[in-house]
Order: sequence, then C-alpha cells, then structure tokens
Amino acid sequence: MKDVNGLDIPTFDDVIAAQDRIRPYIHRTPILTSSFLNEMAGCEMFFKCENFQKAGAFKVRGATNAVFGLSDEMAARGVATHSSGNHALSLSYAAGRRGIPCHVVMPRAAPQAKKDAVRGYGGIITECEPSTTSREEVFARVEAETGADFVHPYNDPRVIAGQGTCSLEFMEQMEEHGAPVEMMVAPIGGGGMISGTCLTLSHIAPKVQIIAAEPEQADDAARSFRAGHIIADDAPVTVADGLKVPLKERTWHFVSNHVTDILTASEQEIIDAMRLTWARMKIVMEPSCAVPLAVILRNRDVFAGKRVGVVVTGGNVDLDKLPWMQG
Amino acid sequence: MKDVNGLDIPTFDDVIAAQDRIRPYIHRTPILTSSFLNEMAGCEMFFKCENFQKAGAFKVRGATNAVFGLSDEMAARGVATHSSGNHALSLSYAAGRRGIPCHVVMPRAAPQAKKDAVRGYGGIITECEPSTTSREEVFARVEAETGADFVHPYNDPRVIAGQGTCSLEFMEQMEEHGAPVEMMVAPIGGGGMISGTCLTLSHIAPKVQIIAAEPEQADDAARSFRAGHIIADDAPVTVADGLKVPLKERTWHFVSNHVTDILTASEQEIIDAMRLTWARMKIVMEPSCAVPLAVILRNRDVFAGKRVGVVVTGGNVDLDKLPWMQG
Repeated sequence: MKDVNGLDIPTFDDVIAAQDRIRPYIHRTPILTSSFLNEMAGCEMFFKCENFQKAGAFKVRGATNAVFGLSDEMAARGVATHSSGNHALSLSYAAGRRGIPCHVVMPRAAPQAKKDAVRGYGGIITECEPSTTSREEVFARVEAETGADFVHPYNDPRVIAGQGTCSLEFMEQMEEHGAPVEMMVAPIGGGGMISGTCLTLSHIAPKVQIIAAEPEQADDAARSFRAGHIIADDAPVTVADGLKVPLKERTWHFVSNHVTDILTASEQEIIDAMRLTWARMKIVMEPSCAVPLAVILRNRDVFAGKRVGVVVTGGNVDLDKLPWMQG
Repeated sequence: MKDVNGLDIPTFDDVIAAQDRIRPYIHRTPILTSSFLNEMAGCEMFFKCENFQKAGAFKVRGATNAVFGLSDEMAARGVATHSSGNHALSLSYAAGRRGIPCHVVMPRAAPQAKKDAVRGYGGIITECEPSTTSREEVFARVEAETGADFVHPYNDPRVIAGQGTCSLEFMEQMEEHGAPVEMMVAPIGGGGMISGTCLTLSHIAPKVQIIAAEPEQADDAARSFRAGHIIADDAPVTVADGLKVPLKERTWHFVSNHVTDILTASEQEIIDAMRLTWARMKIVMEPSCAVPLAVILRNRDVFAGKRVGVVVTGGNVDLDKLPWMQG
C-alpha cells in the first residue's frame, strides 16, 4: 500500500500477497478462444472466463482478499456491504469460507432471486428503502451495531489488489498460448476490475494497452476520462446492469494514470455480442461482460491484427429473461 | 484395428494415432468443477467441456480422425454423411480444414438454422424427403456421383477411435486434479462417445466404471443392455434430440463388453439438470449433455462419495427456444 495524495493505493506487492491469500478459495479460470469470433473481429482474442469463477464473477477475488486479510479480531465482527449484485454474492461467499458473518444492505424491492442468491451464500440481509438516504442510514446502523468491516465493491485498496490477481493469472496462463497479448479489454463500471488490471499490467507488462469498455448509455467513465475528472451519472439505464455505478477516487487514480482509452457500444451491439458469445463460445455471460466484444466489433481498426485479452467478468444472469427475447 | 467376428474394431493404438492426427485441429477442452453441484449430488464431478470443442461438440474428434486419415487420393473425392446434427457440422468442419468437399444429405424440412450451420462450415447439402427410403436413395446417388467416403456418425472404427481421444485427454488432465476418477458418465445415443470411452479406459484405467446415461423416453440402449442384444426404437420423442439414434454393431461391441450400467432420467429431470448447469456452471450445453447430471442426481446412491468424470458432449442449442421456457 502506498499513500498518493492522502489515498491508500494498492501496489503490486499487494497483488502478489492477494494471490497467495485467495488461492485456496477461488478457481483458476480457463482462457477460451474462438476462431469464428477472431475472424469476425479481425484480431486474436483470449477470453479469461471469470464467469466460471466462484460465486459466478471476478468480484470474489477482491472480496476474498478483503475477508482473509482481516485480523482474527476484526474478522469476528464480520463484514458488511451495500450491493445487490455480484459483490454481495462474492462477499457472502468469502465470509462463509472464513466462517464469519456478512451483512448486506439491500433495497426491500430488490428481486427475490437476488435476495435468495445472497442468502444461498450465507449473507444476512437487512432491507432498506430504495433511496440513497435510507441505504446510508440503514447501513450506518448495521455497521454500528455489528462492528462489521465495510468492504466497498470497488473503492477499496484490498478489493482492487484482489481484482489485480485476474490479469496476473491471465499473463501466467498466456505462456501456454505463444506470444503475450498486446491489448487487454475489460468492462468498466465502478472501475474495480480495470484498476486491478492497470495495477498488475503497469508493473509486469507496461506495454500492454488497457482498453475499458462501457455502454454508450452509461458512459460516465468515458466522459470522465476525456474531461480529466470524475463525472457521476444519476441512474443510467442500460442492459449491462453491472456497469451503472460511477468511478470513485481510488479507481479514478488507476483509470486516469494507466488506461489507454475508454470505448463504448450501443445497447443493441451489447445484446448482439452477448448472444454471439453464448452461441459460438457456449458460455453463459452477463450483458456487462459482452461490452468488450461489442466494443471490439465496433472498433475493428483499433484492434486489427492484435492479440487481445478479454476479461469475461461474470455469468450471473436471469435465465428466464434473456435480453434477445424481450421487446 | 482388429477383427472381431468379422467386424473392424478399433484398438487403443488407433486412439493414440487419432490423438496425434487431430491435435492441430481441435481444442484441448477444459475440465470444470462446481462445488455447488458436488454438494447437491453427493459426489465429486469433473466436467469435460466438449461443448467448447470446435464445431461445438465432441463429434469433431471422430470426424477429424476420419477425414485426416484418408489417403490424398481418397480425400480428393471428399466425404459424405447423412445427419442433421453435430456430426454433419463436425464433418463439414474437418473437411474444410483439409480443403476437401463434404456432402451432407438432410431432409428438406430440416430447420433452416441447421442447414445454415452446416453451410457455415462449408458443407454441401443435398436434400431428401423425410423418409428412410428417400434418405438412402439420395445418399446412394450422392455417393455414386462423387465417390465420397461415407463417414457414419458413430458406427465407424475411425470415428470411435477419434471419440476415444476425449477420455485419453481427460485422464491426462486429471493429473492436475489430484486422484483420478473412479467412474465416468457420458450420454448414450448411437454409442460413439461411450464406445470411445470404453476403448480408452478399458486400456489405461480398467477399474473405472463406465456409466451410460440415457433419456427414459429413448431408452433403447438400456433395454438392449439388459436384453443382451440391440433393440432399436422407431422415432423416440425426447428433448435430448442428440440421443434418439439406435446402437449399431460396432458400438454394441463396446457397450456389451465394457459398460458397467446404463441409467435413465425423465424429461423433466433432464431439463432441470440442463438449467442447473447453465445457472451454476455458466456453460451453454445441449439437452443431451444434461442427461448424465440428471442421472447422477436421480441415483445419488450409485455415485455417493465417488470421483466422477462427466462428458459434456456439445453446446449447439437454439438460444431462442430453451426447454424451460416452453409449455
């Protein structure tokens, strides 16, 4: 950890420590390739399949690093977060593996399936009203009553260091695939995965270009990148529901210092790319994970002839409601 | 190859030769595990993901072995088959890699998507009427006119030897997973995959029990197994549409000599297992591939506490028509 203008920013040593710490609890996910998609895109893509990860998403890396980095005394009081997505599942999973409580504050109106999933991993849900005020009030009460350690979904140095293990593992695995990659593409929402990618690659492979992929309809990171400061949108609407949250100061540190570019794709392009991946690669991935492929297909010139790593971030999707079946 | 009562039966040497021959053209597919499904089933399962295979199914192993085993002179005349399923795709793929024609006889009424898929891999379709007589007539004509080599979907020693490379590769990969498996489960239709599995395992791991998994509604192999001779059903109806075809003499040789048991599952159990795998393992698999898991969940006592290999045979499925969304 280092101090950058008063912020605790993780270093590559933290990524190495995280890799050792979380190894017993996570999958070493495979890299898949598709010559059909390569031909279509005009580049050679290597998909790091974190949709096969424990709890169904890369987020388990950061959550597990946070949970297993706690002292026994701290751990005994548990961990807490507010999220209704993959971070809540991941933190519940990690806490369960350590045998400590995980408190999750979720809106009363969140889908039953999401509540069931969190409870399925052992998370303890406290409901709030669907406003930021209520969420913050309820969360503060849970924190005060339990003494649980708050693990933010992305603006937490332990989480960013944990996400950094993904590209570390990827680069190790690429040794079996001939030459290394020249570019790495990952979706960007709050920026946890991209920050971990920046942290690792800027250290071990600084020439690799890092491209963040974002829905056109939730392009706050792209606009922030061009403006030179964080722009946060209020409730953007996109099928890529994992990517609606804004950058925060720690992820902005990495995005502003290490990302090569942020490219966007339309809703239809995202849905088409999602369906294409299901059909040709036979993997179940979330809409958010399809954004990198959508961006690559839209910007063929940027990626032409390159070896490109693609992070498939998660596979938690409602199988009864697939986006190409709606409307 | 050896002669058994006048039949050309492949030997383990043919599997080794096949592995070398097809290596440049196929994927070394990963093994995935799911602690959730293990807990549910009460055994430890290792899923060999042939749904990620080239052309989307294990069938490319046998087809590629047949195509690349041809002399240049034979190859120049091409290959031919009658199938509207994964074998047609696989043979078209393999022929395309060798740069030779692949003739596929298909019913005029076959779904457009299947025709498009075969053509997408370079297959040349000749249409027939939806009767066995018409199919045989048309096929004989195509064979006579082209001199193409007939590659049967499963009752062909080259195909069986090719499918045998799947468990060979699986057993090699299991060295990274601690102990080897004690049981191996694969779906059974015509018996090509099961025969290849028997061929390989009876040679390198004869103690491994081989369980064939079949839909209750297309249980001709199970009934054949108990009767001691081939029973062929006429047009069984099951969601597992890859498993409707009957055993033939070469696959019966392996099934009758090496299979430990054939277990069945109901249509609903197959659909439930399919959905469960999509939801928890994040992989797109065909209904046929879900039959092994369905059988394991139905017969927990048979598999209790065991290490079990499961062949996920293919992932070619209509994404607009998922069985849990119908009726």
